[in-house]
Amino acid sequence: MAYIQLNNGLPGITGLLENRVDTAAPIRELTQILLRGENTLTDMERELVATIVSFKNQCHYCTNAHAATVMALGGTEELLNKVYHDLENAPLSEKMKSLLVIGSKVQENGKAVHKEHISRAITAGATDREIHDTVLIAALFCLYNRYVDGLDTYCPEDPAYYQKLAGRLVTIGYDRPKEGARKGEENFK
Amino acid sequence: MAYIQLNNGLPGITGLLENRVDTAAPIRELTQILLRGENTLTDMERELVATIVSFKNQCHYCTNAHAATVMALGGTEELLNKVYHDLENAPLSEKMKSLLVIGSKVQENGKAVHKEHISRAITAGATDREIHDTVLIAALFCLYNRYVDGLDTYCPEDPAYYQKLAGRLVTIGYDRPKEGARKGEENFK
Repeated sequence: MAYIQLNNGLPGITGLLENRVDTAAPIRELTQILLRGENTLTDMERELVATIVSFKNQCHYCTNAHAATVMALGGTEELLNKVYHDLENAPLSEKMKSLLVIGSKVQENGKAVHKEHISRAITAGATDREIHDTVLIAALFCLYNRYVDGLDTYCPEDPAYYQKLAGRLVTIGYDRPKEGARKGEENFK
Repeated sequence: MAYIQLNNGLPGITGLLENRVDTAAPIRELTQILLRGENTLTDMERELVATIVSFKNQCHYCTNAHAATVMALGGTEELLNKVYHDLENAPLSEKMKSLLVIGSKVQENGKAVHKEHISRAITAGATDREIHDTVLIAALFCLYNRYVDGLDTYCPEDPAYYQKLAGRLVTIGYDRPKEGARKGEENFK
């Protein structure tokens, strides 16, 4: 049970967002723009920023959810393991590696992003918009991870839960799911 | 100069929000609901959560801005110094101290919030809603602080800048200021 009483039986962030739809609406809107809006970064690249930040914040719910989304978008477990533990040797472009370094630094603290991290990304061809979006996605997941864990929400163990959630995040995105779209997700609690 | 080219000469978060109005709209909306919406916590109490988190993240722009807002709402420098350095002896209710401890823990990491921190707040009379809002405000300022510092935005030194900004945050709040409402703020850059 979470630290506060929720009005539903959904786990992780889904329970929090359904519990407070007023604050959930702008959180969902911001996420939809950043992770699914028109962008020169692919959906998978943006999900990788969300995943590496969640991993470094040790937020198991968000890491599982966004890792499953990376996989649903064509990523592999090998890619994820490299991103977590050996980023410089991950099968990614130099630009993407440099952006994931920036995301990792944002996870530590905004001041941990130094000029050299930005210069590396620019040299690798990253645009100001891509750098901006990487920083803001990383900052947003610092919010999400703290919201989910700071209220001690339930984190399902079953990988099938995250596969189902990822399927929804790929097809519907981050807008509020329609009635019935989340059928069965409560059963994992 | 910030790490990315902005379309305006405004410092700190104001330059970022005007530079990207699509992502700014939900960020502003979330902040307005949490810090100025109907609540059993006063505006000053909620600003104190924003301030302590910004202070602990060493985000000078946000700390200056929200400390000035606390002062504009009736707080004192003595109160702020106690909140920063000696919270347990600050001239605040036990409930407010317990909520600021929760906010401080959220700043570290969501998992740093333990059952004992929540129990203390509940014993002191905090409601689930107040605990929820404290956690989400603290998480939101972990986003803001990283956004502001991760892109190395300009941080004015002049206290008059923050007094002017605080005046606006008290009277207008976090909605996008109307044309002209920010007149003169660019001059501080």
